[in-house]
Amino acid sequence: VYNIRPPLPAVGGNEGVAEVVEAGAQVSDLQKGDWVLPAAPGFGTWRTLAVAPAASFIRVRSDIPAEYAATVSVNPCTAYRMLRDFVALKPGDVIMQNGSNSAVGVAVIQLARRMRVRTINIIRDRPDLSYVLSRLTSWGADLVFTEDEIRGPKAREALAKLPKPVLGLNCVGGTSAAEVARLLADGAQLITYGGMSRKPVTVPTGTLIFNDIVVRGFWMSRWIATHSRAERSAMLDDLLEMIHNGELEANIETVPFARFSDALLRSKQGYRTHKVVLKFE
Amino acid sequence: VYNIRPPLPAVGGNEGVAEVVEAGAQVSDLQKGDWVLPAAPGFGTWRTLAVAPAASFIRVRSDIPAEYAATVSVNPCTAYRMLRDFVALKPGDVIMQNGSNSAVGVAVIQLARRMRVRTINIIRDRPDLSYVLSRLTSWGADLVFTEDEIRGPKAREALAKLPKPVLGLNCVGGTSAAEVARLLADGAQLITYGGMSRKPVTVPTGTLIFNDIVVRGFWMSRWIATHSRAERSAMLDDLLEMIHNGELEANIETVPFARFSDALLRSKQGYRTHKVVLKFE
Repeated sequence: VYNIRPPLPAVGGNEGVAEVVEAGAQVSDLQKGDWVLPAAPGFGTWRTLAVAPAASFIRVRSDIPAEYAATVSVNPCTAYRMLRDFVALKPGDVIMQNGSNSAVGVAVIQLARRMRVRTINIIRDRPDLSYVLSRLTSWGADLVFTEDEIRGPKAREALAKLPKPVLGLNCVGGTSAAEVARLLADGAQLITYGGMSRKPVTVPTGTLIFNDIVVRGFWMSRWIATHSRAERSAMLDDLLEMIHNGELEANIETVPFARFSDALLRSKQGYRTHKVVLKFE
Repeated sequence: VYNIRPPLPAVGGNEGVAEVVEAGAQVSDLQKGDWVLPAAPGFGTWRTLAVAPAASFIRVRSDIPAEYAATVSVNPCTAYRMLRDFVALKPGDVIMQNGSNSAVGVAVIQLARRMRVRTINIIRDRPDLSYVLSRLTSWGADLVFTEDEIRGPKAREALAKLPKPVLGLNCVGGTSAAEVARLLADGAQLITYGGMSRKPVTVPTGTLIFNDIVVRGFWMSRWIATHSRAERSAMLDDLLEMIHNGELEANIETVPFARFSDALLRSKQGYRTHKVVLKFE
């Protein structure tokens, strides 16, 4: 169901960081040792080595953990844009999201905290609920409820003490999206960036007509296609600075890296002029 | 489920035209014989007589059928606004709607025709289908399909010959709304103004994320509350001019009017200064 379908055969993988191991003679803006991210979606990062035009990459700082550089380009960027591009949020405002323990969700919590925007977070019930609760709270989540709790009196009481959310973020769909829509302030926006329940987004008719809720979607790939490389670089630099300063953490499980071999490289033609040779970690 | 709930006991009725039968001495802008519409929603028009401040009414022309004046303020106005306030439509553009034989739907068809905007119309299957088809076509409907037909090969072929719709109008909800959403152009808007199926508006997640469809609602009462009396008067004058010229017809069944009695009037105090006395037809 995904909207990016490269011609087959293709290398999978949309995200990753690579290190430049060799730069062609006419490449001026990248050099050996630089870290880069693919500039366009769907580059195919599930590989050890690549030879491609230097313009296909964006250089990023290399003084942060590689896991963070490798995973910054989709989820934290999605959180970053959704908090900026739909509603003009100001300190004290409240937003609401489901799937709050997702990679985007935990970035939303931390980015909102820096903006002094309060977050109401919905998560699925789970065996390690208290662990997840403590993680989200440590990152700055103001309120956290399970999908069941959000419909109950405890949530109602807690929500009544806050201004109604002016922005809702949905990555679940179905009744979970309807629940977020129902609780938003009049004129608020509900942004869908995922559909983990595989159910469509359902919004009560009255919520649209009487509460004037605006329902739309966000897709990072479209943002990339419709914005300049400079705008994207500025966003990445901003996020990587936060990561460097310990202000933006992620749920990352690290596994031992497969070490690259450069056997494949020998067969590539022309890489010594305009192209760079990359090693993906 | 409706959002206007006057204090009880109350007189029902949101729409209607009234004739001024007497104007208070300090009333300068209305006089005996004028036709007026209530300025605010929820006035309570299911009555024979009323005494109320002159500022509660908007004068309209009286050289059109009373049935039209009595029904212009909600449905034709809703069609008028939905074609102007969401997408900047230009001649040749295509829009799509369900519930196309509703009072709003038939106004949309006729207003779109004047804007040289083409309409794709969905209606329910019904015994008098060929009659409804001929009516909608005579008013300018470009394509008309039943809810079943819109999913079939005949509709697919016809739709492929037109640009994709940049605006969708929904008064049904449920799968009918999803069907309209699915067929819209990237970046199009889907406006909900009713929920006749009593099912929520359902939009596929991919339609929001990948096609960038904006889903929102329209409620005439909010528009009235957030716009000036002059803006509303201009819209009403525009619509009544079209009605006068035979450019905007409606599905109206006329029934004999109940004649008013002025017995109630005698008990009203103070109507001879700032108030007007009205007769509703």
